[in-house]
Amino acid sequence: MDTFGSLFKVTTFGESHGTAIGAVIDGCPAGLALDEEWIARDLCRRRIGDPPSPQLTTRRREPDPVEWLSGLCPAGNEDAGSPLLLTAGTPLAFIIRNQEAHSEDYEALRHLLRPGHGDYTWLCKYGLRDYRGGGRCSARVTAAWVVAGTVAKQLLAHQGISVQASISAMGMTTEPGDTLGGAVTCIATGVPAGWGEPMFLSLKAQLAMAMMCIPSAVSFEMGIGKAAAAMKGSEYIDQWSDGGSGSHPGPQNLVTQTNHCGGVQGGISNGMPVTCTVGFHPVVTIGRPIRCADTNTGLLQEIAVGGRHDICQVPRAVPIVEAMAALTLIDCMLASAKPQPIA
Amino acid sequence: MDTFGSLFKVTTFGESHGTAIGAVIDGCPAGLALDEEWIARDLCRRRIGDPPSPQLTTRRREPDPVEWLSGLCPAGNEDAGSPLLLTAGTPLAFIIRNQEAHSEDYEALRHLLRPGHGDYTWLCKYGLRDYRGGGRCSARVTAAWVVAGTVAKQLLAHQGISVQASISAMGMTTEPGDTLGGAVTCIATGVPAGWGEPMFLSLKAQLAMAMMCIPSAVSFEMGIGKAAAAMKGSEYIDQWSDGGSGSHPGPQNLVTQTNHCGGVQGGISNGMPVTCTVGFHPVVTIGRPIRCADTNTGLLQEIAVGGRHDICQVPRAVPIVEAMAALTLIDCMLASAKPQPIA
Amino acid sequence: MDTFGSLFKVTTFGESHGTAIGAVIDGCPAGLALDEEWIARDLCRRRIGDPPSPQLTTRRREPDPVEWLSGLCPAGNEDAGSPLLLTAGTPLAFIIRNQEAHSEDYEALRHLLRPGHGDYTWLCKYGLRDYRGGGRCSARVTAAWVVAGTVAKQLLAHQGISVQASISAMGMTTEPGDTLGGAVTCIATGVPAGWGEPMFLSLKAQLAMAMMCIPSAVSFEMGIGKAAAAMKGSEYIDQWSDGGSGSHPGPQNLVTQTNHCGGVQGGISNGMPVTCTVGFHPVVTIGRPIRCADTNTGLLQEIAVGGRHDICQVPRAVPIVEAMAALTLIDCMLASAKPQPIA
Amino acid sequence: MDTFGSLFKVTTFGESHGTAIGAVIDGCPAGLALDEEWIARDLCRRRIGDPPSPQLTTRRREPDPVEWLSGLCPAGNEDAGSPLLLTAGTPLAFIIRNQEAHSEDYEALRHLLRPGHGDYTWLCKYGLRDYRGGGRCSARVTAAWVVAGTVAKQLLAHQGISVQASISAMGMTTEPGDTLGGAVTCIATGVPAGWGEPMFLSLKAQLAMAMMCIPSAVSFEMGIGKAAAAMKGSEYIDQWSDGGSGSHPGPQNLVTQTNHCGGVQGGISNGMPVTCTVGFHPVVTIGRPIRCADTNTGLLQEIAVGGRHDICQVPRAVPIVEAMAALTLIDCMLASAKPQPIA
Repeated sequence: MDTFGSLFKVTTFGESHGTAIGAVIDGCPAGLALDEEWIARDLCRRRIGDPPSPQLTTRRREPDPVEWLSGLCPAGNEDAGSPLLLTAGTPLAFIIRNQEAHSEDYEALRHLLRPGHGDYTWLCKYGLRDYRGGGRCSARVTAAWVVAGTVAKQLLAHQGISVQASISAMGMTTEPGDTLGGAVTCIATGVPAGWGEPMFLSLKAQLAMAMMCIPSAVSFEMGIGKAAAAMKGSEYIDQWSDGGSGSHPGPQNLVTQTNHCGGVQGGISNGMPVTCTVGFHPVVTIGRPIRCADTNTGLLQEIAVGGRHDICQVPRAVPIVEAMAALTLIDCMLASAKPQPIA
Repeated sequence: MDTFGSLFKVTTFGESHGTAIGAVIDGCPAGLALDEEWIARDLCRRRIGDPPSPQLTTRRREPDPVEWLSGLCPAGNEDAGSPLLLTAGTPLAFIIRNQEAHSEDYEALRHLLRPGHGDYTWLCKYGLRDYRGGGRCSARVTAAWVVAGTVAKQLLAHQGISVQASISAMGMTTEPGDTLGGAVTCIATGVPAGWGEPMFLSLKAQLAMAMMCIPSAVSFEMGIGKAAAAMKGSEYIDQWSDGGSGSHPGPQNLVTQTNHCGGVQGGISNGMPVTCTVGFHPVVTIGRPIRCADTNTGLLQEIAVGGRHDICQVPRAVPIVEAMAALTLIDCMLASAKPQPIA
Repeated sequence: MDTFGSLFKVTTFGESHGTAIGAVIDGCPAGLALDEEWIARDLCRRRIGDPPSPQLTTRRREPDPVEWLSGLCPAGNEDAGSPLLLTAGTPLAFIIRNQEAHSEDYEALRHLLRPGHGDYTWLCKYGLRDYRGGGRCSARVTAAWVVAGTVAKQLLAHQGISVQASISAMGMTTEPGDTLGGAVTCIATGVPAGWGEPMFLSLKAQLAMAMMCIPSAVSFEMGIGKAAAAMKGSEYIDQWSDGGSGSHPGPQNLVTQTNHCGGVQGGISNGMPVTCTVGFHPVVTIGRPIRCADTNTGLLQEIAVGGRHDICQVPRAVPIVEAMAALTLIDCMLASAKPQPIA
Repeated sequence: MDTFGSLFKVTTFGESHGTAIGAVIDGCPAGLALDEEWIARDLCRRRIGDPPSPQLTTRRREPDPVEWLSGLCPAGNEDAGSPLLLTAGTPLAFIIRNQEAHSEDYEALRHLLRPGHGDYTWLCKYGLRDYRGGGRCSARVTAAWVVAGTVAKQLLAHQGISVQASISAMGMTTEPGDTLGGAVTCIATGVPAGWGEPMFLSLKAQLAMAMMCIPSAVSFEMGIGKAAAAMKGSEYIDQWSDGGSGSHPGPQNLVTQTNHCGGVQGGISNGMPVTCTVGFHPVVTIGRPIRCADTNTGLLQEIAVGGRHDICQVPRAVPIVEAMAALTLIDCMLASAKPQPIA
């Protein structure tokens, strides 16, 4: 349940108030020189939002230094002084230590279940829960997703594939102390036709799962998504572009006039940009007294929850959406390297 | 890619114009007496729509007789004459033979790639494709999903869980020869708190994947879904119901005043009804000439495609949505049977 | 539990006295023309032994006709009269119907648990069991393994890889009504260096699992196996052959002077023949009265079990060992098609 | 490939000369108080051998301090001063830092491929390799297996199950500079009847895979193993013990007079001790000049390899065999918690 992917497997761990969060990436091809600056840049986008939104996101702003534990080895042909480290084909493990964890802020919540959070469901499932800062439920854990996703982006970039997300909708006004939701749209360009599997591992199903893993995600739309349900077939169908002039000698590079389907047909990519949109509910920790349930009695009790909380998580979700798209696509890329047809 | 589920594993096979479609169900608990009438009823709903829509769906109306091949054994304590057959804990395999397959109807499509279908993407992926009636891409294959889903429903019913879907939106008018989309909403009642896994196997992520596997699905919404993105936090949060009178002696049966989240918080069920909505694009085979691309040259060619086609698939999608929800939930049920906390 | 393989996934089903046994092969590359004669030949070896051993094996000799249900489609460029069928990349499903099932022979065993069989353990696990002919435990189910294995052999042969097993040990004399065990050694030639994964999916671990799945297997040895435990390091180490004459310009085709390790080092194939040996216990149904335990009381009862039974299963295990080796190797082949190192 | 188990999933990482080795354990039930002393004790047995063998094993003797990164949370009902930490149901991650890594010892091997090691096969697979101390191939990585295995042992102990291994064979004499192999036998008592799955996840197949993952393992035997191949059926069959006196009111606690099969019949445990034996080849690094192949030219070159190396790894393999058995059994235990038969 804490592993994402089947060929580029990312096994995550960590809680907001434990020693560290991190992940193990199993299946990363050998020979890649990690671009650590790119990783730092994406972690920064996750931390302060993309675009940066000082009025919407919290000030937990310390950098997230990534410590690599394994999976890198000397290229073997360099001078011994400053070896270039490459991925070795073995598991890449990294950690990000938790630094600003003030567990005492959460002492008041020790016996209280907040509405809108996973407090109650985790208690029901596990019989105990980490009340400190959301524990494993905290959005903090997505930092590890971003690191793994940026490794995937780098591998995809070697194949000419780019993954870019941006905010496509956001709640506009809010009373003081209230919070907002919104939506993020992601576009992957350069994805060749033929990626994804039909049926239960269709590219759209894999993307849906990837996106709905994100803590506050409430909706997933492939291509134009829900709007398609209100269209007529004659409007919806993505017609082939005319290649009659001879510019398309064969079918392997057909393009369509529109891209309502978001680049996936019959579950498999068609060479057009792969696009999807993820909706996010508003932040469920608001700056007002909330009515919590007591873990022992179930009785409600109104308290004011302190601490720093975002007004809107959508700016911070942008690189997370990119990461999940990249992790999905890298798995498809590795799967698509399987042997070609026999005949 | 053709297997759904991890503990109640459904491995499907078959094309619309092959000998048979079917599936193997691995992991079904032993001791269940299959309710074959329930299965037949759901197959009928898939065939003619629920509610039946003679004007919207095609007339491929022959019953789909299910032939069980394995996985059933005598209960062992009955009289030898007419043994009661129970699931044995071994793989349940079944087939539904293809009867009305007129491959010659599709001869004209042998070298043509229709817009809006998987023709092109499958050709790119596999180097060849079954042009006869959509092959493995055909909606025909979902009949096997429904059979497996109804077995799952029966197991869930033993635990007091019911899964019900219905049409929640549909395109309203259409020109002659055109087609419509719509949406189906599914509600599962009786799901206890604590099902689903956090992170990548969260119940909402699993449901999203299950639903987006359905051929024409374009959007997935958990609970109120996309509408949540436009709400303020104070509106969205599902507040605890007041149990102050003492009717709730402990937290294990907390309920909420609203159910915007659709019964899932922190990735795990909270005991409220599990609800989601799936949007479907309009049927992409329309009753007018379409411009197809030649498989060899890529040049476009306008042809009229014959055969029977639905105007709207949404009525037929209702039992399919139920099946995918049931298959998701049965997997969660089996996973939730893992040992309780140690202490 | 009834699926073997991760990329060439074989999901099996069926009991000895049900309607049919069979399997679904998911992940078979597209474009293969099945060699049905090869399959029939291997099924025949499984049925009468290799070499045929009329005095050791039973006379359940009817052919096992294989009915293909799905996964094949016309090549697309042939004349319509007699299309050549190729694998389509979609799941290949097949069944073999049970013909000689005389359930009444087993009526006496309905409430009795034989020693040495799985009767008791299955009853403990599932709460019920199919007492008719061993049910899912019957060696009959391995016919489906052989079919799938021969498809794998055919794919491997396209890559120049051959898998051959033969009897390497057999109990020599026996009293009337008693039974024998033995061993089968398997050699795969043409396996390139670099197949298998390190650690938990090492080629030797995968082969061990594959072989120990076979019902009567009691031991697995890689290369010279157990004999290695008694050797000194200086004797055991497979020394490099001298390529000093220039015949080996680089390291990619190193060979060793001996092959004690059986072609696998560090978990990964080294280009030498992959060899292993599987030991089998004697047949546990013997031609004498046996003491069975009553399912209700646990009291012992001596009965004579009728029916046809092998004196030695080893001749029939030969093609089964080949099948399991081929299924293991094809999975490695598909996994090894993953992208090459980046740099 | 670096993950073991399906319900108690252990994902390992690390090389002998990287920053750290470690693992993530996903699926550990909540509520367990880790017994860190037990873990330290088993790590010590792995380091110096069990029984300790100063003449056979190397002196890399520094303790292996385990740093826990995640997966533990306060029990919630203790005084805040010194909280008792329990497993939270979330991923348990730990690392052991590499301390005595003298990479320079291995500089001479940078362009040389040793015989008997994985040097060549890893180079073929990944295009590069970590020449420092065996890299990921080093036996060092098994320290993480032992930690995870001891967590599993602790969970099993809660169910009354004990896992004990010991040396059952060892090469007896050796010339100076030469090395020895041997065998380890493992016995698990208290395993209830009904664990393991039939077919491809049979308990004997799972154990075989687990054991053959161990770097130097060359053979696996279930119960009496290979000796069974030379027995007659009448000798081999484990007869039921007579429960006629009424001490066995039902079949759920049948025992057998012998245990040749090693506690597994029809792939499933029968309640008797689960026993197996693993053979190990002699250490392949010997204290004499060896002929290595050059990575660029393939030409052979004789060198003396320095560093510390064991004469015999078998004493150190004892806790590793226990760990792999425990990891296999805990997975079976979690799987066996699935719902009971319906009827």
